[in-house]
Amino acid sequence: MDFAFLAAAPEMESLALSMLVVFGSAKLLAEVFERMHQPAIVGEILAGFLVGPAVLGWIHPDAFLHSLSELGVMFLLFRVGLEVRASELLSVGGTALRVALLGVLVPFGAGVAITYAWGMPSIEQYFIGAAMVATSIGITAQVLASRGVLSHRASRIILAAAIIDDVLGLIVLAVVSSLAKGDVNYVELGVTAGLAVGFTVMVATWGSTTMSRLVPRLEKRLKTPEPQFTLAMILLFALALLATRAGVAAIIGAFLAGMALADSVNDRVHEMAQGVTRLLTPFFLVGIGMQLTLDLFANSSAIWLMVVIVAAAIASKFIGCGLGAVSLGWAEAARVGVGMIPRGEVGLVVAQLGASIGVIPKDVYGVVVFMSLATTLVAPPLLAWTFRGVPPSDSSSRIEPASIR
Amino acid sequence: MDFAFLAAAPEMESLALSMLVVFGSAKLLAEVFERMHQPAIVGEILAGFLVGPAVLGWIHPDAFLHSLSELGVMFLLFRVGLEVRASELLSVGGTALRVALLGVLVPFGAGVAITYAWGMPSIEQYFIGAAMVATSIGITAQVLASRGVLSHRASRIILAAAIIDDVLGLIVLAVVSSLAKGDVNYVELGVTAGLAVGFTVMVATWGSTTMSRLVPRLEKRLKTPEPQFTLAMILLFALALLATRAGVAAIIGAFLAGMALADSVNDRVHEMAQGVTRLLTPFFLVGIGMQLTLDLFANSSAIWLMVVIVAAAIASKFIGCGLGAVSLGWAEAARVGVGMIPRGEVGLVVAQLGASIGVIPKDVYGVVVFMSLATTLVAPPLLAWTFRGVPPSDSSSRIEPASIR
Repeated sequence: MDFAFLAAAPEMESLALSMLVVFGSAKLLAEVFERMHQPAIVGEILAGFLVGPAVLGWIHPDAFLHSLSELGVMFLLFRVGLEVRASELLSVGGTALRVALLGVLVPFGAGVAITYAWGMPSIEQYFIGAAMVATSIGITAQVLASRGVLSHRASRIILAAAIIDDVLGLIVLAVVSSLAKGDVNYVELGVTAGLAVGFTVMVATWGSTTMSRLVPRLEKRLKTPEPQFTLAMILLFALALLATRAGVAAIIGAFLAGMALADSVNDRVHEMAQGVTRLLTPFFLVGIGMQLTLDLFANSSAIWLMVVIVAAAIASKFIGCGLGAVSLGWAEAARVGVGMIPRGEVGLVVAQLGASIGVIPKDVYGVVVFMSLATTLVAPPLLAWTFRGVPPSDSSSRIEPASIR
Repeated sequence: MDFAFLAAAPEMESLALSMLVVFGSAKLLAEVFERMHQPAIVGEILAGFLVGPAVLGWIHPDAFLHSLSELGVMFLLFRVGLEVRASELLSVGGTALRVALLGVLVPFGAGVAITYAWGMPSIEQYFIGAAMVATSIGITAQVLASRGVLSHRASRIILAAAIIDDVLGLIVLAVVSSLAKGDVNYVELGVTAGLAVGFTVMVATWGSTTMSRLVPRLEKRLKTPEPQFTLAMILLFALALLATRAGVAAIIGAFLAGMALADSVNDRVHEMAQGVTRLLTPFFLVGIGMQLTLDLFANSSAIWLMVVIVAAAIASKFIGCGLGAVSLGWAEAARVGVGMIPRGEVGLVVAQLGASIGVIPKDVYGVVVFMSLATTLVAPPLLAWTFRGVPPSDSSSRIEPASIR
């Protein structure tokens, strides 16, 4: 007789086990990396490689962990938004636009050129190009927030450029997907782009003033406890939803929600949101690390392509985005260039999309996945290096005490 | 052409939509009920009935929402544990033991007597009896915490009795399941019970002193930010896991983790854990409400049985548990009796277990589910009534500002 099942154990047991393995392993490796003077975030990603199917096999990607990881990156960007004011982003808008544009053109060109030289069919060339355009702002945002340098000029440029990049990436991907299906409708394309730009610009411009009027009024009227937190969560999920409906990534909606609330919620909401973010961010990072399996290297003919693509992915974003910010001096340009390197989960999504509509064969899929992961792992130490000597400047009450090192 | 899919939209969109519908509807109905001077928690449960498959069908029970709801009740009990000291529970141990014992015997006897009179086979009698023994401490804990009366004597008795009740309920269910399988091994039964009791007593007794020594030491050594929060989360998931392995409910493990940390973590950890709890508790409550479907009333022959069972479920816990606390006066006895009434998710688990091993037919399953939900909905207003005039006494820094009403 085994009575374990009686206490609703099978479900609760596996839930508690997953939570413990993901959170515990991420924090353990973060600690190890911190002691080796390496970025903790790399440790958390590698924890996913370690406990995932590639090595120990303690956890496997499933719908629950995947949803928690998506919730994790949403809260990560929401928290970052809470630290940023829209005016700070708009003031660097011109530079950010140049960074984003060059950060799309150079990587796309590099991707197409390499795969053309490799002899791939043109639709594969375009898809690899589109994957190289992707930017995962989650990784960079986490590094900048944990160093307390979110309000630094280079950080603001990176954040603004990543938002523009998301819209541009959408357009590139839309064109490429349309080409793959052999049907490009420029009117619909224009409407899609217009909707995405309109939503983002509108929320960024008026979100903050609307909320500073709305939140105090609603707060007075609501009778349930912690009205500010309730309103913050509802705005977060509502803007994440609207963003996807407007064709922008849900995390951009989450970031805009945070930014809209930056001036109108109190420190308690910051701390409560920080609790959720601290709990869920490891699920995002471990989720990325779990994608790193040894199957990726199974096809030996692709190894060389992999090396070339990874090198080009790093160089093209660094050069393209750096060039966009070169008017601010080499140091700032290097920070911006490095901050835009990670492709993270966005590159993975492009790879999955390409595979699902059948234009990317299995070996090329592996190349794109590895490119996404390699750029993600390489950026945090480079970011730490380019930001060395830059003192933390974010408001201390909102940043965790131990972030100053 | 529809480009919505390009921004990883299908998954992120449905995730954001689920979060918005569950959280938003729960908070909306909480607000409505608060304005009608009814317990907000009843509104949040009924939100699940409203947006779930029974009425609007906006959301359906799925693995993700179910896991979030389990995580929600884990965090709810963890937060309650953070407000309670083990010594406070041990000081009411004798009374709590009487409350728990009578709270098992009277409902079990009532369940068996009614179903015997109804002419059910004996194994069904025992299962209904076991379901009537279940106690869902989550509901009562939420009501007591939101009123700020967790440190009141009746509250402490309820919490301690609910823990003992969990162990006793395990034993009852183990015996009943063994009878259903026609094989009762008393030695294994004894080992199971001993393990459950041993785990609970050990953690309750030594958890707090161990943590007050361990947390400050580990905190000094850890180099990653927010070490207290990291340690708290790891202890929470580890004890929830160990609890299921010892045969106790995961939420009892979560409660014990909170209690062990009550003296050794700072206010920041309280607030961060509160953030997670505030976000996830609606998923627990809505998850319960979603179980309330109109199918439950499909079998008209069972309606009368339903009415009798619900009445007996309310009366037997109230009388049994009240009798156990009668030495403290009628007012305290009534509070304790009412606080033990909700069967919530624990009753649902017993019903599912009975159905899964094939001893509970479909109509009887519906009766048990309805009994669990009805007792859950009836308790919060009764609790508010028996605690009327009792001033909030929990440390104000840890309880949300608006809880005093």
